[in-house]
Amino acid sequence: MAGNSFGNIFKLSTFGESHGEAIGGVIDGCPSGIHLDLNAIQNEMKRRKPGQSAIVTQRKEPDEVKFLSGIFEGQTTGTPIGFIIENANQKSKDYSHIKDSYRPSHADYTYDKKYGVRDYRGGGRSSARETACRVVAGAIAKQVLKDIKINAYVFSVGDLELNTPYTELDLTKTESNEVRCPDENVAQQMIQKIKEIKKQGDTIGGTITCVIQNVPIGLGEPVFDKLHADIGKAMLSINAVKGFEYGSGFSGTKMKGSEHNDVFNSDGTTKTNFSGGIQGGISNGEDIYFNVAFKPVATTMQKQDTIDKEGNTVEMQGKGRHDPCVVPRAVPIVEAMAALVILDHWLLNKMYQ
Amino acid sequence: MAGNSFGNIFKLSTFGESHGEAIGGVIDGCPSGIHLDLNAIQNEMKRRKPGQSAIVTQRKEPDEVKFLSGIFEGQTTGTPIGFIIENANQKSKDYSHIKDSYRPSHADYTYDKKYGVRDYRGGGRSSARETACRVVAGAIAKQVLKDIKINAYVFSVGDLELNTPYTELDLTKTESNEVRCPDENVAQQMIQKIKEIKKQGDTIGGTITCVIQNVPIGLGEPVFDKLHADIGKAMLSINAVKGFEYGSGFSGTKMKGSEHNDVFNSDGTTKTNFSGGIQGGISNGEDIYFNVAFKPVATTMQKQDTIDKEGNTVEMQGKGRHDPCVVPRAVPIVEAMAALVILDHWLLNKMYQ
Amino acid sequence: MAGNSFGNIFKLSTFGESHGEAIGGVIDGCPSGIHLDLNAIQNEMKRRKPGQSAIVTQRKEPDEVKFLSGIFEGQTTGTPIGFIIENANQKSKDYSHIKDSYRPSHADYTYDKKYGVRDYRGGGRSSARETACRVVAGAIAKQVLKDIKINAYVFSVGDLELNTPYTELDLTKTESNEVRCPDENVAQQMIQKIKEIKKQGDTIGGTITCVIQNVPIGLGEPVFDKLHADIGKAMLSINAVKGFEYGSGFSGTKMKGSEHNDVFNSDGTTKTNFSGGIQGGISNGEDIYFNVAFKPVATTMQKQDTIDKEGNTVEMQGKGRHDPCVVPRAVPIVEAMAALVILDHWLLNKMYQ
Amino acid sequence: MAGNSFGNIFKLSTFGESHGEAIGGVIDGCPSGIHLDLNAIQNEMKRRKPGQSAIVTQRKEPDEVKFLSGIFEGQTTGTPIGFIIENANQKSKDYSHIKDSYRPSHADYTYDKKYGVRDYRGGGRSSARETACRVVAGAIAKQVLKDIKINAYVFSVGDLELNTPYTELDLTKTESNEVRCPDENVAQQMIQKIKEIKKQGDTIGGTITCVIQNVPIGLGEPVFDKLHADIGKAMLSINAVKGFEYGSGFSGTKMKGSEHNDVFNSDGTTKTNFSGGIQGGISNGEDIYFNVAFKPVATTMQKQDTIDKEGNTVEMQGKGRHDPCVVPRAVPIVEAMAALVILDHWLLNKMYQ
Repeated sequence: MAGNSFGNIFKLSTFGESHGEAIGGVIDGCPSGIHLDLNAIQNEMKRRKPGQSAIVTQRKEPDEVKFLSGIFEGQTTGTPIGFIIENANQKSKDYSHIKDSYRPSHADYTYDKKYGVRDYRGGGRSSARETACRVVAGAIAKQVLKDIKINAYVFSVGDLELNTPYTELDLTKTESNEVRCPDENVAQQMIQKIKEIKKQGDTIGGTITCVIQNVPIGLGEPVFDKLHADIGKAMLSINAVKGFEYGSGFSGTKMKGSEHNDVFNSDGTTKTNFSGGIQGGISNGEDIYFNVAFKPVATTMQKQDTIDKEGNTVEMQGKGRHDPCVVPRAVPIVEAMAALVILDHWLLNKMYQ
Repeated sequence: MAGNSFGNIFKLSTFGESHGEAIGGVIDGCPSGIHLDLNAIQNEMKRRKPGQSAIVTQRKEPDEVKFLSGIFEGQTTGTPIGFIIENANQKSKDYSHIKDSYRPSHADYTYDKKYGVRDYRGGGRSSARETACRVVAGAIAKQVLKDIKINAYVFSVGDLELNTPYTELDLTKTESNEVRCPDENVAQQMIQKIKEIKKQGDTIGGTITCVIQNVPIGLGEPVFDKLHADIGKAMLSINAVKGFEYGSGFSGTKMKGSEHNDVFNSDGTTKTNFSGGIQGGISNGEDIYFNVAFKPVATTMQKQDTIDKEGNTVEMQGKGRHDPCVVPRAVPIVEAMAALVILDHWLLNKMYQ
Repeated sequence: MAGNSFGNIFKLSTFGESHGEAIGGVIDGCPSGIHLDLNAIQNEMKRRKPGQSAIVTQRKEPDEVKFLSGIFEGQTTGTPIGFIIENANQKSKDYSHIKDSYRPSHADYTYDKKYGVRDYRGGGRSSARETACRVVAGAIAKQVLKDIKINAYVFSVGDLELNTPYTELDLTKTESNEVRCPDENVAQQMIQKIKEIKKQGDTIGGTITCVIQNVPIGLGEPVFDKLHADIGKAMLSINAVKGFEYGSGFSGTKMKGSEHNDVFNSDGTTKTNFSGGIQGGISNGEDIYFNVAFKPVATTMQKQDTIDKEGNTVEMQGKGRHDPCVVPRAVPIVEAMAALVILDHWLLNKMYQ
Repeated sequence: MAGNSFGNIFKLSTFGESHGEAIGGVIDGCPSGIHLDLNAIQNEMKRRKPGQSAIVTQRKEPDEVKFLSGIFEGQTTGTPIGFIIENANQKSKDYSHIKDSYRPSHADYTYDKKYGVRDYRGGGRSSARETACRVVAGAIAKQVLKDIKINAYVFSVGDLELNTPYTELDLTKTESNEVRCPDENVAQQMIQKIKEIKKQGDTIGGTITCVIQNVPIGLGEPVFDKLHADIGKAMLSINAVKGFEYGSGFSGTKMKGSEHNDVFNSDGTTKTNFSGGIQGGISNGEDIYFNVAFKPVATTMQKQDTIDKEGNTVEMQGKGRHDPCVVPRAVPIVEAMAALVILDHWLLNKMYQ
């Protein structure tokens, strides 16, 4: 209810502030008997962690997950998996300037008004550091769902877009460059763009596309817990996300029904896939694909006016180490949240069998 | 869990198929002591109901809500509000052609695969008829939230867009035309477009914009139940919705942080509102606004090939009475779902006070 | 959250006041493809309904269930089952005396204080009439669980106890007498006792024992949703219940571990069953048995002093038609709630398979 | 869903096995701005911890709670409170004898059957060690509820009962002796009894009474989430509990309505309190009191036959360090669970104000 749990059957509850001692979580409902590959989990952490390349924040965090329960002799036991990730590289003094002031387009103001008190260091709970816990749970979910492939990649940085449908891309190339775009040519342009933006002390938005393949038919619980509704919520819960569309999305609104309808093949598959793999809220076995919009990071290195708690105007300039563009590091987060939703619905759907 | 309940504190559970005896629901958690204006509720039903104009389906349904509990001497009592809406105008024989066949881009196939059995008449549970129950609950929520204004309107039909920001529109004019677009000029073009599409036996998509004003600061429960994440899920749960964006949305991804940041006034309001009234998942007191994308209705009056249960190709043509474009009737549904989310979070937020 | 839903996967949400137009509910999460025997459901209703014998309230209610959705051509479809039961025999004028006064040991006072307003007629929502909806859902649950046998019976009326363990009783005889005690001899004494109490214008308490057989091993979700914890909550949610014990219960507290431990047979069954079929919150395949304590009905036909809303002392005397002892009619309610819990956990446990 | 979370608004999710690295949990929904007294929390831990006296298990665990989030400069921030308790004194080799065998009346067998794998060391997740996390959360809940007094004490050990109603006891004396019985004379007899039982290598059951005072009127959410139903579930979820009764409980079933009814005073209080402070599932402002039945600990130091995984008979004898009677250490657990329920309902009830 208070908002820090996600999922019904496979349920993640997280805790932790950016500059507290540790962040962590509890995964409840993980099936038993899963032999976990801990390296694979740590590898997902590396894809998200700061300092991984020249185009992301230069903060250093080892981001090592420590599992405390629910795993015995390498296998999940069906009991809750508790884990923590220590906050190693807190430089709290970087944040003393925001103790009594509100950064524009950050959550400082709303947290203060809602709770009356906040841990201002590094954004506290509102920091995207929290998403590390999502990646842990998502990495486990991926291992449970081993036959289902979930691949996200950067589709655009600012107005620089990858104008190729996912069906014509080699998604295994996503990790071959720093920006996580599977087209090497466009990737280099994106990297260049981010470097320029960074040089200006500014930031830029972008979009991520995610493709989920080999999803069994039948996942999704209409009428409210439609599969795409739960995926959409999952994506919108990620820091900085402003929009979500699946299948034909916003551009589908310009189409006619006669163009948009996905005609069946005799085996129940469809000739086109404007529907994005979901009909009536239930997966139909086709690929699920969707786009997620990320706003530009609010912390810039440029000076700007803002207010303090008393409403006085103060000048502020970003300190610390921040991302000029959030999408390269958000790719594993999008995949993780997708995995959580798919696994939860996959478990739910077992009831019908 | 099985997907037919929405909300945590103010919770709607619905039931009913398109061509069964009745649809209905239970609203649990409605505060007591609310003097309900039943006419206002029925008026919201009229905005959604079929047969209201020349550009919507010509089915006739009185859509009269009958309340069975939870209201005593005109006031809510705090106990659950049960209600039913009879299905008056079922023409089940219109649907015998889909008993054993799957309409393209409909939920026939996925329901059959998931549940093994389906009430095929009129789409059964997957019919948008179900949204009538959402409008009932939303109409009650609006009355509880009396100081909060929720206004949706048609922003586009196909590629015909209303190129005016909501701040320059007179939203009281939305109901002055059949298509529910507050700009009379654009409205007439939209109506014309829908009529042409209908003449072709085809359908067209569109988008709806919704604006929520006077929302108190503090609604939203990070990190997963962010206010916009719950609004997004609510919208994506509506039939035919393919996308959701709030504030700057997808276009915000092309902006720089220095442009996108909403600078504070000394009273905590902001000079711009790219954030869409929500920061870190919590309302900041500014207007909340968002767009919802609807695909073209899948049932066209044109002939198309599809398959039956055995995988044989069969020719199909839409029968019955269908909407050529769903957005005019979807406006009150978008408002209703928005009201459900805002009220639920408003009640949740009382815990912090 | 607001308390009118029960269960996670197989979820019942109910509505309705004693003297409103109808009571009813929504059952969400019922598996599809179940051929429902509607007579069997109505038969359970008859076991609960008023006017069935000389020792229960003489109110007349046909208590006919009307299903509105979720069932198609005799089968469940996996979509929510909506149902209503009309309130046929309301004599609201019987209750004008409690409009402004609070009956002792009734919920009049607490409802008024909590909600500020109440439908006083017949106790409104706090009336045990609400349990009719539980019986509907329980009757469906029983049909889904067809191999699991759930049998409740009256164990005591006042201090008159059935001193025979359930293993030595023929539980098929429970329905052979009005009081629902499987020992004919004790049953007649109980009936006699209730008649005497009724003649005095008084009421009396009693206990019900319930036995659940053929439960598969593995139901229950430790550590909080232990099977017996959920059964206990289910029972305690029934009107007038004051206590719950399972297996050795309160008398087990007087035993030594060496006596109480259930020694295994080589097939995993146990030689004794002090545990009551549950170990560590998980069913072990042995019989689950438990006792439920019901207080004496608060409405007596004797005069008593009470207070009105202003705190003035007023004299009150029960009017209307009330049960002198609640246990005979509570037997099917206990079974219904047990069925809801077992089915919910049975569906949950499918995730582990 | 998977059973390791408790509460709706103030929600505790726990993890951890008896002999893993640590146990811990996440408390979500704690109101912000609470100045926490960490010593008071640690003090509650001491009341539960092993090794505290001669009549409890001699295991040594410091049971120090380490808070990782949600508290900033001594105050709760409204964000989730993560905490861990290290398992310091694991002697896993004590448990090698149960690796392949099932202890009678323990959860070894049911965990193995449900999950297919188990951490057998010290009972793993089924160990009462898990309740330490409940005490942490309960201690915080008590501080939030500062005006509400929750006092539990040992009412009986075996057949040795404290025959004094709570209203005639000085509950401040509960902590003055090792067994936690507020009557010093009876306490000494209980201690003596437990020592004798221990000398026999046996164990004994007992009951705990709990009294909650100063509860505001209005807590509880009928019809299913009645206040006593949630308290009952909370108690039944504690290891070894076999029964729960509140107010007049099982003995109330022997009373007549004319004796049992609690007559009002003019201020709405009642002259008697057979109802146990709850009417219709809602607190009425009177004291809430209830009894909880604990079975004898299953691990005895006597030899007994049991089976291994293959069904072979093996002889087993308790090793390690175990409680001869669980009730002295269960007193703070009962209080903690009571505090969780009351706080959760207290927060929920704010919605009505």
